Amino acid sequence: MPFAFPTIPALHEAYSKGLDAGAVVAEIYRKIAEAGDPGIFITLVPEDQAKAAAAALGPFDPVSKPLWGVPFAVKDNIDVAGLPTTAACPAFEHVASETAFAVRRLLDAGAILIGKTNLDQFATGLVGVRSPYPVPKNAIDPRYVPGGSSSGSAVAVARGIVAFALGTDTAGSGRVPAALNNIVGLKPSLGAVSGSGMVPACRTLDTISIFAGTVADADAAFRVMAVYDPADAYSRPLPLPPAPGILPPGLRVGIPDAASRVFAGDADAEAAFDRALADLASVAPGKPASVDLAPLFAVAALLYTGPWVAERYQAIREVIETRPEVLHPVTRTIIGGATAYSAADAFAGLYRLADLRRAAEGLWSQIDVLVVPTYPRPRTVADLEADPIGPNSELGTYTNFVNLLDLSALAVPSRARQDGFPSGVTLIAPRGRDGLLAALGARIHAAAGGTIGASKEAVPSISDSGGRAAAGEIEVVVVG
Amino acid sequence: MPFAFPTIPALHEAYSKGLDAGAVVAEIYRKIAEAGDPGIFITLVPEDQAKAAAAALGPFDPVSKPLWGVPFAVKDNIDVAGLPTTAACPAFEHVASETAFAVRRLLDAGAILIGKTNLDQFATGLVGVRSPYPVPKNAIDPRYVPGGSSSGSAVAVARGIVAFALGTDTAGSGRVPAALNNIVGLKPSLGAVSGSGMVPACRTLDTISIFAGTVADADAAFRVMAVYDPADAYSRPLPLPPAPGILPPGLRVGIPDAASRVFAGDADAEAAFDRALADLASVAPGKPASVDLAPLFAVAALLYTGPWVAERYQAIREVIETRPEVLHPVTRTIIGGATAYSAADAFAGLYRLADLRRAAEGLWSQIDVLVVPTYPRPRTVADLEADPIGPNSELGTYTNFVNLLDLSALAVPSRARQDGFPSGVTLIAPRGRDGLLAALGARIHAAAGGTIGASKEAVPSISDSGGRAAAGEIEVVVVG
Repeated sequence: MPFAFPTIPALHEAYSKGLDAGAVVAEIYRKIAEAGDPGIFITLVPEDQAKAAAAALGPFDPVSKPLWGVPFAVKDNIDVAGLPTTAACPAFEHVASETAFAVRRLLDAGAILIGKTNLDQFATGLVGVRSPYPVPKNAIDPRYVPGGSSSGSAVAVARGIVAFALGTDTAGSGRVPAALNNIVGLKPSLGAVSGSGMVPACRTLDTISIFAGTVADADAAFRVMAVYDPADAYSRPLPLPPAPGILPPGLRVGIPDAASRVFAGDADAEAAFDRALADLASVAPGKPASVDLAPLFAVAALLYTGPWVAERYQAIREVIETRPEVLHPVTRTIIGGATAYSAADAFAGLYRLADLRRAAEGLWSQIDVLVVPTYPRPRTVADLEADPIGPNSELGTYTNFVNLLDLSALAVPSRARQDGFPSGVTLIAPRGRDGLLAALGARIHAAAGGTIGASKEAVPSISDSGGRAAAGEIEVVVVG
Repeated sequence: MPFAFPTIPALHEAYSKGLDAGAVVAEIYRKIAEAGDPGIFITLVPEDQAKAAAAALGPFDPVSKPLWGVPFAVKDNIDVAGLPTTAACPAFEHVASETAFAVRRLLDAGAILIGKTNLDQFATGLVGVRSPYPVPKNAIDPRYVPGGSSSGSAVAVARGIVAFALGTDTAGSGRVPAALNNIVGLKPSLGAVSGSGMVPACRTLDTISIFAGTVADADAAFRVMAVYDPADAYSRPLPLPPAPGILPPGLRVGIPDAASRVFAGDADAEAAFDRALADLASVAPGKPASVDLAPLFAVAALLYTGPWVAERYQAIREVIETRPEVLHPVTRTIIGGATAYSAADAFAGLYRLADLRRAAEGLWSQIDVLVVPTYPRPRTVADLEADPIGPNSELGTYTNFVNLLDLSALAVPSRARQDGFPSGVTLIAPRGRDGLLAALGARIHAAAGGTIGASKEAVPSISDSGGRAAAGEIEVVVVG
């Protein structure tokens, strides 16, 4: 292969020069074997089937099939017809009869499915170790957790096995694993991508998410999937954002104020975030506003102290009420906590959220984008063995509030820590601003430089991966 | 007084000719005494205070004060500073320290508050007999229930004591009593009128509503109140609808199909509805579409079989958990039922509603306005004594689904029944179409003719009460 990481532009350039998609598939399965990590996939598509899918694509045609020949993986809480869906609970396993709406869109656009990936059981967790299957190894440093709940998808991308992978994100499951594996994690606006065919966690807060090596690739997959689906009651006809292009002049950026900087005692994490802010300053001119995150942290606290865990309970009610012993013990403890909440408590929680949303929404009259660390500090497998709950909650510090507040978010790698482990930031904006996040995120990622995931492929410069002006936008030169 | 019912135009014409607002206040208290019904008001503003408020208005100025000198009443689950709020539960009584946002708007517009009105305790009921205070007498025929939960407000208007009165509406409490008392009941789009200062029933479904003698008067009060209130998390910045003027050309009207006509065996009610449809045809040309209401009735069923009763429980949690004996026995039984529902049940209900909403929303691509009976048949006090639950549920047949589906609604009197008791229809449209409903409702009310409430005042013709073209609308002649 003429690239160390299969970005979509790299694949398409090679395809245009005659590379055979079947050869790409063969290379993927070689990489899977080479990785030697049985925790990444719960179900692999047999290699001959993936090759047959590649052969069935016909001649290279990136116009009618924008994902022509692009290998991808799907978190195993999303249905693919004919393959089992487990949600990392073997007793829950069932062969799906229909393919999820969003996956169908990807297949129709020419993407080649490689397999179904491991996760924190029933998408409950931010760590990736709450699975009865082997835990996927962090692609950068196996001492660290892979992150969750979309652990396998993030690792599969970080290892360059697939160009992109679907996760799901309720409280950060599409962002935390991205940062822990040095890749991009896009959490679309709620309702932008259909949830039909997804095993819900919290149905009012869930979305399918996308891991990719670059912002441009995550955005390309998002654009293919972002279609209104009347069959999903939580799908919304949001306007497709403009392609990420130039940054709008006068972009107002917010960053955490001094009291809102939470790094759980990790000075290296704090220094890495400050280097990310320097990169931010180089791509987004103007002094960022210091934002008090207390109203957002108050929302985040709701997720763990309020009734939303009952959504997870409702999603697996049959299992937890009739066969609780089949659940991962940590998962069973967490979701079992839902029985403490009455319907009145649930509504009280919704009222409290409505009040907190109202209190938080004023933020968006002051800034357009909020830039935060993706998590306070990375955590190791040993940390989670010592305490399976605390470090998990800590990892959600900067992610938990996003879905409750109906915001869009994009996690991108920033400059590495002093100890060499990756660091990352998350960009947050009101729903529907996914395109703006992509435009800024691509620039921050490019400014950080480095390589994609665990590969030796350099992060593309902004002129390679983005920077094209969207229709209707004015091309302006961004200072810096 | 130069009028039998105090409509706003009649009052303002008289004021412009020199009528003293204090004299109007005196006449109101005379009418209250004449009515001899201790069930209407829970708290009356002392006559001298109301006169002082009238005197404080200054010179007649309907431009800066569009409700100058207009007497009104407020349901006693809405706060007025310095007056007790009881929600028809004496043990809940407390003197409000602040005036509800919507009431403040009315007072600032020159309206004169006369008193706080009786209701089904904690706004739970559609009958008006679930109160420990004397039951207000139906203004038309005391054998019938006054309707609820906004019983006192509806009767106060029907008797011509006040020009308009505030109710609240969660499941029909602003519409059923209007039909039972031959007046107009406007249920605004959710969030259009602030709920700050209202004792909630179901906070996700509640709205303040308006009873008036005419559509124009209800609309005038609505316009004064329909202002975004950031302090109410459920207030929404909806655009104020255009003033009710001409009917848009090509208006698409829907009516219940044969299977959806529910009259609970009351042939007189059915015949009255058919006369209303004849009047509808005279004002809205074109054959109405026959609509299957089954998807709407399925939503209505949710309200009584689903977890929403837990919202009522949460609203009075302190009372029902510590002093259940102070509740009306029927209210206690109904709201106490909430304890059967878990938080998981609550979310399951919300998912079910989301699915049913999605299934029902296609209706609005086929029609602009749905016209239904306000209830299947009127019910008597004796009916409710025999069965306090069944007839109450029946009265909500055509109202329960409206708030759950985020629709706007307007109840207007139609031609009377053969037995002389009033009949009424309700117009329903998507949220934000309040102005369209007012335009059509005023025409149906005028076509029905008759008198306002229990008064001898004729319903104004459309040229008197409406028919002015709103800015931006095209003036067209409506056939018929």
